[in-house]
Amino acid sequence: MSEPIAFLGNLDADEEAEFLAALAHAMPEETVRPFRTLSEAERSGVGIAIVANPDPAEVAQLPNLAWIQSLWAGVERLVRDLGPGSAPIVRLIDPELARTMAEAVLAWTYYLQRDMPAYRRQQETATWRQLPYRPPGTTTVGLLGLGALGSAAADRLAQAGFRIAAWSRSEKAVAPGVTGFSGPEGLAGLLGVSDIVVCLLPLTPETRGLLDAGQLAAMKPGAGLINFGRGPIVVADALLAALDAGQLSHAVLDVFEVEPLPAESALWRHPGVTVLPHISGPTTPASSAAVVAGNVRAYRASGRIPAAVDRARGY
Amino acid sequence: MSEPIAFLGNLDADEEAEFLAALAHAMPEETVRPFRTLSEAERSGVGIAIVANPDPAEVAQLPNLAWIQSLWAGVERLVRDLGPGSAPIVRLIDPELARTMAEAVLAWTYYLQRDMPAYRRQQETATWRQLPYRPPGTTTVGLLGLGALGSAAADRLAQAGFRIAAWSRSEKAVAPGVTGFSGPEGLAGLLGVSDIVVCLLPLTPETRGLLDAGQLAAMKPGAGLINFGRGPIVVADALLAALDAGQLSHAVLDVFEVEPLPAESALWRHPGVTVLPHISGPTTPASSAAVVAGNVRAYRASGRIPAAVDRARGY
Repeated sequence: MSEPIAFLGNLDADEEAEFLAALAHAMPEETVRPFRTLSEAERSGVGIAIVANPDPAEVAQLPNLAWIQSLWAGVERLVRDLGPGSAPIVRLIDPELARTMAEAVLAWTYYLQRDMPAYRRQQETATWRQLPYRPPGTTTVGLLGLGALGSAAADRLAQAGFRIAAWSRSEKAVAPGVTGFSGPEGLAGLLGVSDIVVCLLPLTPETRGLLDAGQLAAMKPGAGLINFGRGPIVVADALLAALDAGQLSHAVLDVFEVEPLPAESALWRHPGVTVLPHISGPTTPASSAAVVAGNVRAYRASGRIPAAVDRARGY
Repeated sequence: MSEPIAFLGNLDADEEAEFLAALAHAMPEETVRPFRTLSEAERSGVGIAIVANPDPAEVAQLPNLAWIQSLWAGVERLVRDLGPGSAPIVRLIDPELARTMAEAVLAWTYYLQRDMPAYRRQQETATWRQLPYRPPGTTTVGLLGLGALGSAAADRLAQAGFRIAAWSRSEKAVAPGVTGFSGPEGLAGLLGVSDIVVCLLPLTPETRGLLDAGQLAAMKPGAGLINFGRGPIVVADALLAALDAGQLSHAVLDVFEVEPLPAESALWRHPGVTVLPHISGPTTPASSAAVVAGNVRAYRASGRIPAAVDRARGY
């Protein structure tokens, strides 16, 4: 029997119990125990930690960690909190997450393409007016980010008949029919052809503040924006100014600089903003536990640490 | 050269010009002329009328009509206005309509499945709360109507991973994976298994008032309703009572007993109702003109009138 795996999470009791049950079900051959139940001797034996918003001080009390498995896909806070000296961090790459995120991209793309916010505003004044219909075949959706999530989203949008452009930091092969852009100079190109821009980027030093006043001005007049990546990628004040100026028609925001979004934020009350509480890519304990179990088994069998986050890039 | 085709529509000048241009482009071998430009002699020569909400008194001034091509899919008002003695009425069966309608069904199914109305209400009070995610694989969409529109919608929903049930007046073959219901006794069966019910039925004596208090009570508690068929199929007062009682969570209504929906209607103001101005299945002049041209050419070649509306059934 291997040494126990430590579980460290800032979760409520129900959530923790649900994750522990899912992990026990997915890898019955392992013992996963909450950090607080481990003795000091047991802590020094721990080689793997599974974490969800952990207390960095607790992680530091596991001196012999080989690697750290995050239960979330986004790890920028974890990387920052644990610092450069920590064990390698493995982010969760959950195929179910790619599916739910691609579904969210399609669902909220329809929300904008089918003018749901505009019809909602018309309803408030009992206004009966048919807005011009824009078929998917003449609507370009521009994806920022072409990793696992972006590729899955591109597939779903293509299936639905949308025209697709995609931008990535470095040049990547794109599927047939997708117009590819890359690099800093390619960003304005993507923004200029897209009716709806969907941000799926991770937060890194390069992406922080990427969509600022200058880039928002490069978007097609009246375009829509969906941010499912990370809040600080979009400069909120610049976004509100672009909405007020009519440069953008509507923004769907699922991620924010501070979450939960503070009640005093102007984003809550702007008629051109749909605020979502970080729900675009739900994972279930069962699906994430299955991915974690796969990583743990591969490590036990080979001794090789799963592909870890590149600290320089931040993801 | 054949005699001219008469065009009769209660359209504004721009719309009429757009339709006439599309028809001229789709069938340059024909002459389509607005009714008002035809002399009395020319009127008696007219064999085909293309109509969009026509004045019945004008239609009556075309004594030798062989058939009447409607530019809309829904013809119940035309059937009623022209009366039993009129020439056969051919409704528009536009493959583009089936596509846009299927897209609307998927878009507004996502609207309900992804809890967009609930998140909208939360935003009004700056409430950050993640609602439980319901995957398509455990969400049953129940389609009322399995004609061209219903079948296209079923295909799109299946592609998106939803479970599908479908009800039709008479028993029909259903695609693999679709649970079929039919007849009066089958309706409660469909309503009882569906998380989201989508009405795509035509208005006939049998479907008028079909979703009354009794049938709404047969729906799953908390289910959603989308009506893209015809307004009078759903009893509005019963719907409002079911929403108030929490029996239904939300209704998306695109069609109404009276259109435009009068400003004083309670539907505009109910928080559980999304009012749309009859936009679920937009057709474009180009796509409908292409279908009309096909019908006219087949008639000129064969002398056979395209499949017409069955007046007894009303569609």
